[in-house]
Amino acid sequence: MRILAYSRGVSNHPAYDALAAAFLRIYRFEHLQAIVSWDHSTYMPPNGNEARAAALGELAALLHRLRTAPELKDQLAAAEGESLDDIQRANLREITRVWRNSNALPEELVVASSLAASRCEHAWRTLRPANDWKTFAPLLREVVTCVRREAELLAKSTGLSKYDALMDRFEPGMRAAEVDRVFGAVKQWLPGLIREIRARQAKQPAIAAKGPFPIAAQRALCERVMKLLAFDFDAGRLDVSPHPFSGGVPEDVRLTTRYTDDDFAGSLMGTIHETGHGRYEQNRPRAWLGQPISEARSMAIHESQSLSFEMQLGRSRAFLGVLSPLLIEAFGAQPAFEPDNLFRLYTKVEPGYIRVDADEVTYPAHVILRYEIERPLVEGDLEVDDIPALWDDKMQSLLGIDTRGNFTNGPMQDVHWPGGAFGYFPCYTLGAMYAAQWFATMRAKRPSLDADIARGDFSGVFDWLQANIWEQASRYPTDELCRRASGGPLDPAHFKTHLESRYLT
Amino acid sequence: MRILAYSRGVSNHPAYDALAAAFLRIYRFEHLQAIVSWDHSTYMPPNGNEARAAALGELAALLHRLRTAPELKDQLAAAEGESLDDIQRANLREITRVWRNSNALPEELVVASSLAASRCEHAWRTLRPANDWKTFAPLLREVVTCVRREAELLAKSTGLSKYDALMDRFEPGMRAAEVDRVFGAVKQWLPGLIREIRARQAKQPAIAAKGPFPIAAQRALCERVMKLLAFDFDAGRLDVSPHPFSGGVPEDVRLTTRYTDDDFAGSLMGTIHETGHGRYEQNRPRAWLGQPISEARSMAIHESQSLSFEMQLGRSRAFLGVLSPLLIEAFGAQPAFEPDNLFRLYTKVEPGYIRVDADEVTYPAHVILRYEIERPLVEGDLEVDDIPALWDDKMQSLLGIDTRGNFTNGPMQDVHWPGGAFGYFPCYTLGAMYAAQWFATMRAKRPSLDADIARGDFSGVFDWLQANIWEQASRYPTDELCRRASGGPLDPAHFKTHLESRYLT
Repeated sequence: MRILAYSRGVSNHPAYDALAAAFLRIYRFEHLQAIVSWDHSTYMPPNGNEARAAALGELAALLHRLRTAPELKDQLAAAEGESLDDIQRANLREITRVWRNSNALPEELVVASSLAASRCEHAWRTLRPANDWKTFAPLLREVVTCVRREAELLAKSTGLSKYDALMDRFEPGMRAAEVDRVFGAVKQWLPGLIREIRARQAKQPAIAAKGPFPIAAQRALCERVMKLLAFDFDAGRLDVSPHPFSGGVPEDVRLTTRYTDDDFAGSLMGTIHETGHGRYEQNRPRAWLGQPISEARSMAIHESQSLSFEMQLGRSRAFLGVLSPLLIEAFGAQPAFEPDNLFRLYTKVEPGYIRVDADEVTYPAHVILRYEIERPLVEGDLEVDDIPALWDDKMQSLLGIDTRGNFTNGPMQDVHWPGGAFGYFPCYTLGAMYAAQWFATMRAKRPSLDADIARGDFSGVFDWLQANIWEQASRYPTDELCRRASGGPLDPAHFKTHLESRYLT
Repeated sequence: MRILAYSRGVSNHPAYDALAAAFLRIYRFEHLQAIVSWDHSTYMPPNGNEARAAALGELAALLHRLRTAPELKDQLAAAEGESLDDIQRANLREITRVWRNSNALPEELVVASSLAASRCEHAWRTLRPANDWKTFAPLLREVVTCVRREAELLAKSTGLSKYDALMDRFEPGMRAAEVDRVFGAVKQWLPGLIREIRARQAKQPAIAAKGPFPIAAQRALCERVMKLLAFDFDAGRLDVSPHPFSGGVPEDVRLTTRYTDDDFAGSLMGTIHETGHGRYEQNRPRAWLGQPISEARSMAIHESQSLSFEMQLGRSRAFLGVLSPLLIEAFGAQPAFEPDNLFRLYTKVEPGYIRVDADEVTYPAHVILRYEIERPLVEGDLEVDDIPALWDDKMQSLLGIDTRGNFTNGPMQDVHWPGGAFGYFPCYTLGAMYAAQWFATMRAKRPSLDADIARGDFSGVFDWLQANIWEQASRYPTDELCRRASGGPLDPAHFKTHLESRYLT
């Protein structure tokens, strides 16, 4: 950060230096935004919301103004011609990307979007448990109205389609045509695979763990497992929020989970998932912090970290053997905590309402459903009022589940839409595919990987992720990152192989 | 807020409107500062500090720039000549005060001060328990260097002495000459009064409460008493920090306390104290929020609220009778919880090391000591290295206590100096004097006040404070507020009468 922002003596790239200083300042305001947003979702009392929305809206406007400051245009042009090293060149590419996306949107739209999302997300917190779609829908409509205008303007600026333009903000380089190709294939084999696995699992019933599981013990267990996974508590925390998330800043990562005393697996597996996000953030390269090159590469790559932790590592037979004695320590011995039973429990495939509680096999169905709703919604081919019926249709056909009248566990279950994050959902399943590819690569390089994990040695996983993903941050475009890390482009076959190997052998 | 900021149709005071809009924006950025600062003192993990200090420094610089924006000067001049109502006129007076104080300081000094204070305060959190004055002193020196420069520039701009200029930021209109006069009188009668009270109390020993007092029960008790005192939990919270404070924003007030399981009175009385601050903030006039006229009048007036709650109300015989059954419910029955014994316990006078734990009789000694150190420190007649010896001298002569080598409970006990808040301490004792004056006024108007309190009816206190202090905010200068509320100027005789009546009758 310091190296990039302040040159020593006379610099031969003054325009680049000016850009780096401007983006360092932006980084610091983003810090405030991250912490205040975390507070908004964790500790803020209800009546604080109006003033908070106004304050966050003011900050969003300021950040927008900083990212679109008139002098940046000339500085960008001048920096292109300056003598820069590879790192600076990559940073300039990322700066340009941020600048281009920001310049596509007028400030009043940025403020309106922030306010609409803030209001809708806040209302969602009480409306979701009340199953109150009627009050929620007009608030969501306001968000969608803003998002459609954003999509239109971003599409005009980038030459992409509306949905592609939104998705590009989370997943640079990814296009709906590619998502269609990948998801189309998944839709072909997924229902059959689910049936086959369920038939097989019906013959190997798992013993359910018996509660209650005191929340204090769950919290202690989650923190213990986070330490086992090398989360740095001197640079982060675990708190509670209705919808678990990973927030904060790389120097101070804020993870959340949620507890109910009749189940511990939800909080524990959720925590392992967020710990994957958290370690990626905590290990963003220190020397580049403050500059766009230090940012996580994309949301799918981010999700590949949480799923590497939760799905690839956390639900492996090897890891569950390590977890078993910790569960006994936390809640007392019971037959359910025997390692093979744990594996049966935490690889159980069962269609359900809730995406975040879904197993890794049915999970893609939840994502495909959302993708197939949010894409026409953004493109104006669908209205908010049409969502519940379409949601139910797709849940019926993909997972055989009836969601009529159940908004709480239907279209109101996620924070993404109320928060204005359209174009994000595909990243989850793309992330699952990347994670499968990372582990295939690790195992090819280190055949003892699973035996090491079973012994409680996770260095094979962490070292590979550190070197190939975390330390690379945004140095390369996603496709190049993937090729350098795994020797080839994203190949969904790894995901299918992973599922077949875990569930059908 | 809306009325002030946005005129309807064509305004006949466009300059005033522009100022109000600018200060509304400042209010929103101050919201972010308040929440992030609260997080800094409550939940932030240690390694987050460097990035946090940089982010808060950036925000301080922005706020300074907004408060000193070049267009404000002409707008202020133009607004003076506009047709304004009384409220707008008072708001303009407060806007001018903020503007004048901010314009006295260059941005780089504001940033340097924020950084130095942020670093020193952060280090203080670990250095204080380690009794490490040696590491602490150079960090404090950096803070003092900044504060001296601030004092010099503020003095030049206001025509006040250096210390007066600093104090004026917390207590507009108060001067060291007045403080000298008031504190000089207190020093005359205080040692004798302490001796007399202690001799008397020696004959009426109190039964100590027997612990341990589980922290979960203390927390529940504190929240219950806050509700009894009408704190609005939909617009505020209680958390934990090493040094209790009241922070946040009027729409979302953040109080803190600290717990140890061998004593509950510290957390409980501290919470009652902060609740007084909190209710003042929660009841700042809604219609003016966002404008300087809505701010609390001054720090002494603020402290008069916390001391009205803690000392005047909270430790009265009448209130302790209401508290008694709550203590029994929280911790089980024991002889110590009998109301007369509680009164003996919580009015016990005993010279001690710690200001925040001091009884209301010895408390002024702690404040006088700090005032007599920080004033020459600011004026350059004393250096940081001289503090420990002078601290010990004064503790010996005022309270007969030896603090040599005890930095933890000596000059390192308070957050004020590491945080750069020089000129603040006198407000505590001035606040105690105002609080005594408020209660004398209340009792004159409502002779049944104490009988009502004993029945659990605190409306006599809350209604009077609401009408005379909270709703007035910064509408009048402090002296006028005091005259309107109590019929006369600040009269320290009320404080002496209160102490004599509570402790010697």
